[in-house]
Amino acid sequence: MIKKILVTGGAGFLGSHLCEKLLTEGYQVRILDSFASGRESNLKNIQKNMQLVRGSISDESMVNEACCGVDAVIHTAFPMTIRERDLNSGLVSDVLTGFFNVLKGALNNNALLVYISSIAVYGNQLYTPIDERHPLEPVLLHGALKLSGENFCRVLTKSHGLRAVILRVADIYGPRNTRISVPIRFLRQSLKNELISVYGDGTQSRTYTYVGDFTDAVAKVLSVPAVEGEILNLSADWSISMYELAQMVRDITGSKSEIRMLKDAPVEDRKLLIDNRKIKQFLDFKPMFSMRQGLFLTVEWLKENPDFYSV
Amino acid sequence: MIKKILVTGGAGFLGSHLCEKLLTEGYQVRILDSFASGRESNLKNIQKNMQLVRGSISDESMVNEACCGVDAVIHTAFPMTIRERDLNSGLVSDVLTGFFNVLKGALNNNALLVYISSIAVYGNQLYTPIDERHPLEPVLLHGALKLSGENFCRVLTKSHGLRAVILRVADIYGPRNTRISVPIRFLRQSLKNELISVYGDGTQSRTYTYVGDFTDAVAKVLSVPAVEGEILNLSADWSISMYELAQMVRDITGSKSEIRMLKDAPVEDRKLLIDNRKIKQFLDFKPMFSMRQGLFLTVEWLKENPDFYSV
Repeated sequence: MIKKILVTGGAGFLGSHLCEKLLTEGYQVRILDSFASGRESNLKNIQKNMQLVRGSISDESMVNEACCGVDAVIHTAFPMTIRERDLNSGLVSDVLTGFFNVLKGALNNNALLVYISSIAVYGNQLYTPIDERHPLEPVLLHGALKLSGENFCRVLTKSHGLRAVILRVADIYGPRNTRISVPIRFLRQSLKNELISVYGDGTQSRTYTYVGDFTDAVAKVLSVPAVEGEILNLSADWSISMYELAQMVRDITGSKSEIRMLKDAPVEDRKLLIDNRKIKQFLDFKPMFSMRQGLFLTVEWLKENPDFYSV
Repeated sequence: MIKKILVTGGAGFLGSHLCEKLLTEGYQVRILDSFASGRESNLKNIQKNMQLVRGSISDESMVNEACCGVDAVIHTAFPMTIRERDLNSGLVSDVLTGFFNVLKGALNNNALLVYISSIAVYGNQLYTPIDERHPLEPVLLHGALKLSGENFCRVLTKSHGLRAVILRVADIYGPRNTRISVPIRFLRQSLKNELISVYGDGTQSRTYTYVGDFTDAVAKVLSVPAVEGEILNLSADWSISMYELAQMVRDITGSKSEIRMLKDAPVEDRKLLIDNRKIKQFLDFKPMFSMRQGLFLTVEWLKENPDFYSV
């Protein structure tokens, strides 16, 4: 029975939403965050109810302390700069050494580890939709690092009895998105009646998933013991092309923005449709937020926080 | 046209044999080794002919210096202690940060990177023989780390134009084997007329490959440009069970040792047969050393170096 949970990266985008959800469900929540990309302001709804440990996952003794006595560890911590195709060896080392520290912390406490992996582990789509058996050939450093973490989980499960669940999450968007994801970029351009710039021909697509569906699924993982040891895709039910997304954003915001295809812009020409049937079978999970609803909630937040991305 | 080659871990088992081969073939050879598990004595046949850089792959500036001006980098460096299922985060960090430094060094010099990976990336055999399309589900930390390196190679090939060849090598044995591999253990027990202890029922098998076939294949990789970008298994043509190996060793050494199955001993009950057809097609490579020949050469060396494993 899980009561006490550590969320690494709990002051980040995914982490802070997750902590809010877990507190609502009655769990005791502890956060470990270095505030490298996490923000104090992300915690304003919950700061009185949770424990906060300020520190990096690279610091083994800090991780040990943060893991002490927890029943589950949800590992969301991941440096944002990795996404920029950075060849900084130090960052790579931090990600993997840090995760290794978290793995050991979970093991020492016999805690369930929920590893937030990514559909980036699949690389280019070889068939559609992408289920969990799809070959693992990441094309981005971000995906290679997430996959390294998955393999560490598998190995330590076999060799040391680690209890783990791996969630391969699709592109998540919503309020407090640390990265300016495409939905955020389109919404900001629309709100300012600026040009909405779609890279390539706009037919590339993604399974964008609202953060509220992400937190719902993770909370369900904690209450279903049978899910231990599984690898599960976590996504919405549908994909959307960039052009459709731009139109929907313009429609929702009532913007006068022009949508323009930048045909020569470099684009990852992938049509990523994720198969989420396995997680639905295990968890009785159903994505509840349509793309329209998710965009609506996100734009409301953007209007209230116009300076979020200029800080 | 490759002339100048850096061999990381060049004072180790694989590395030192490789350097001997490359010098014979007329290449200029530079070694980077920290001597954590590499040995000065491994270089005694070649020390006059090569350049030696003493340092760790974890040291970025050292790696940059060692990579300067080379046409190819052969990455054999790997800490021996990882094989012991060690959960030392520092070692994990060294392996991956170190490899990242080597990747950057190769990129900076537009050098071909030959990454010495391992069949450990496959994990348990799901079908036989194991070809390069076999699922990648390592069960040992050693395999997970080798696989992380492969994924870094793939990513940097796509994003930064890295030129790489990945060799998944089978269990290599021979003179100067750093680890006391099973052939070495059996040979030593036989030479002392001690009990030859076979773990389990002795039916588990491996594709043991003599180090001379390993060096032959790597040298061929350097002379065949078409191999760039490929992932290739590197192994002998046959597998041998532990019981057969024990018998062959006793026969070759003329030993009076008794062979005894330790049925209750923990054993990795795998029958690993590796499919080496792809490398043969690409390289016109053919393993030349029978198991008998390889064991004979190894035992001759052991007799001449009785103290190698007691240092």
